[in-house]
Amino acid sequence: VSKCAQICTSCAKVTPFALKGKCECGGTLLVHYDLERVRHTMTREALSTRPTTMWRYHELLPVMDLRSVISLGEGWTPLIRVPSLEKRYNLKEILIKREEQNPTGSFKSRGFSVAVSLLAERNIQKAAVPSNGNAASALAAYAAHAGIDATVIVPQDCPEYIVRECVHYGASTYIIDGMIHDAGNIIDDGTEEQGWFNVGTMREPGRAEGKKTMGLELAEQLGWSTPDVIIYPTGGGSGIVGLWKAFKELKELGLISGEMPRLVSVQEEGCHPIVTAVRTNQPVQEAEPSDEVSPTGMRVPYPPDGQLIARMIQETGGTAVAVTKQEIEAAQLEMGGYGISASPEGAATLAGLHKVAADSWLRSTDRVVLFNTSHAMKYVDWAKPFPNVPLVRSYKDVNGSVKK
Amino acid sequence: VSKCAQICTSCAKVTPFALKGKCECGGTLLVHYDLERVRHTMTREALSTRPTTMWRYHELLPVMDLRSVISLGEGWTPLIRVPSLEKRYNLKEILIKREEQNPTGSFKSRGFSVAVSLLAERNIQKAAVPSNGNAASALAAYAAHAGIDATVIVPQDCPEYIVRECVHYGASTYIIDGMIHDAGNIIDDGTEEQGWFNVGTMREPGRAEGKKTMGLELAEQLGWSTPDVIIYPTGGGSGIVGLWKAFKELKELGLISGEMPRLVSVQEEGCHPIVTAVRTNQPVQEAEPSDEVSPTGMRVPYPPDGQLIARMIQETGGTAVAVTKQEIEAAQLEMGGYGISASPEGAATLAGLHKVAADSWLRSTDRVVLFNTSHAMKYVDWAKPFPNVPLVRSYKDVNGSVKK
Repeated sequence: VSKCAQICTSCAKVTPFALKGKCECGGTLLVHYDLERVRHTMTREALSTRPTTMWRYHELLPVMDLRSVISLGEGWTPLIRVPSLEKRYNLKEILIKREEQNPTGSFKSRGFSVAVSLLAERNIQKAAVPSNGNAASALAAYAAHAGIDATVIVPQDCPEYIVRECVHYGASTYIIDGMIHDAGNIIDDGTEEQGWFNVGTMREPGRAEGKKTMGLELAEQLGWSTPDVIIYPTGGGSGIVGLWKAFKELKELGLISGEMPRLVSVQEEGCHPIVTAVRTNQPVQEAEPSDEVSPTGMRVPYPPDGQLIARMIQETGGTAVAVTKQEIEAAQLEMGGYGISASPEGAATLAGLHKVAADSWLRSTDRVVLFNTSHAMKYVDWAKPFPNVPLVRSYKDVNGSVKK
Repeated sequence: VSKCAQICTSCAKVTPFALKGKCECGGTLLVHYDLERVRHTMTREALSTRPTTMWRYHELLPVMDLRSVISLGEGWTPLIRVPSLEKRYNLKEILIKREEQNPTGSFKSRGFSVAVSLLAERNIQKAAVPSNGNAASALAAYAAHAGIDATVIVPQDCPEYIVRECVHYGASTYIIDGMIHDAGNIIDDGTEEQGWFNVGTMREPGRAEGKKTMGLELAEQLGWSTPDVIIYPTGGGSGIVGLWKAFKELKELGLISGEMPRLVSVQEEGCHPIVTAVRTNQPVQEAEPSDEVSPTGMRVPYPPDGQLIARMIQETGGTAVAVTKQEIEAAQLEMGGYGISASPEGAATLAGLHKVAADSWLRSTDRVVLFNTSHAMKYVDWAKPFPNVPLVRSYKDVNGSVKK
């Protein structure tokens, strides 16, 4: 008996589960579970005694044999309240989901735990991924743990630490003078000769399903309720797909009820195809990224299925906002002031909060969740001057440097 | 009614709980709980439904009013098996406790969550710490979240990222040309004038009690049993104190039974006062660190109460080993090969495993836990040449670079 099938979001055709992301018609395939069956075992009570990794939701993950699971301790990340922000915007609750506490320092651990488990289950020995950085290092780590060869290609302006991280985990690591889709083209060109399995965004079902656990665990951590608003940084968009799917499945299972959370997508000024599509209600167009746009996970000029992402956001009553590099930098420092290490993408959600709050888009009854997708430290720009840290010899020097 | 008192490890005098680390006699004070009272509420059943942070053990933490707790999502870190190591050494189980998944990327989050909560509970507004790095950034983060001013002093060879991190969280950050105790002297000199509360190692009870939760949760995660061996990197030594105390308290509470885990302390060649004391059975002497010894958390030439640490290790039937810088570097790469980002201190526990295994000190029935105390990324040496990562233009370049 198969655990799940796939359904096309375009032609609605149902096909047996396979490691593919696209229907013959070109539509995106989503994994479809027999929720009537899941309902019997994945109860609130059963869940309450399970281990605190994302694999507690194994009925809603497409790995058949749990002995194939490649786990490094992903998921069940903390959710932190920020009372000063709640007060400032007169909101019911503002929570930060600390995805940087995942094994590879980013939310990408989730998707690759599932994707690499699916490869391991099928004895696939070589995987490759085009990435802006964190997906590459996540593949590198999970593939290393599974004994699978990993090849990763990232833009040459990828944060240096992340490139080092890929090498550290033993991946064959390449850089290109171009964007993530250029890296994807190179992998496509070499796939046959190298025998790579391409685990790029929406190329296979594991990554989106893994990200889905962010939504599943958010609902459980909130006592089986949903937040009103989720602000999420968007690149390829499979995070949005995962979140949307999580709440849909939980509703069908009867584990939550009520409205879907309004999904808010954040991208950076200079490369924001999803924001444009959502705000203008037009089909997603390939963006021409400006030279100034930062090399973060949000810089994806042409997401594999932007249409689907935009539709999901609109369906929830959500919105999309572009924030500037300067707003992101200020938000990173603001996050630091709350004691939180936020990547540019994670900080962008705070900048997005400021924006939607200024637009009076939020309601005072809203419970808002920001996703801090990665650690600040992975993005340190070593070209920037080192901060002014006084070298002291005695207390006199310290006292002398204190601002009076 | 007071929740706890303090007891001197030297003269055994019991005094009311206070934010101090030393008895009048000079002995180290440990926190003492009324375990008969704790036994009634901190049951296995009650724990099974509590939130997955270290504050689930609040009965065994000295904060009186839980509304004072400053929490950023610390504790309940994953425990990962490494089957290839188990096979290699023919051991029952080898597990890595992934402390780098704490909020500040290191185990130091635990101690500072408690220490800063104790300050917040008393409305203390200024804290200072001498540190080798990770304690400084943890104080910086938790103090920021609590709205407390933090001052940190670290050696000038402290990893650059960690210095940046302290600044990012808003701490007044200073570097010195010296060791951690030199930084401590400067803080002592300025304490009165600046009104600092010194949260240095063993200066107050919060940090050791916070680290204790590593042991509490290890026992719970292992289904209320103990590992046979714990390998732990040692600097100031409060981690050893915390682990020792955790298992003692759990035994008294009847939550675990049997032998104490054998505690194995690891330090680096060139600065290993605890190792010398344990192996020669002599009192702890101040070490003269060699110029080559790495600027890690283990480089503490004169731990505040080394005697106590050595005694605890010996009492459990444990041991202590010094590993070389080269062995640590090799172990970091080996950890990378398992998909794990390990700091030098965390990797030192793997190097220590190799050493005690080579000495036939382990038994095939042993379940061994290594503590990976921090992320590799916090220690990247930017002076080291960037790894050789080919810039590719097309698949031809990738194929050309593949080792045949």
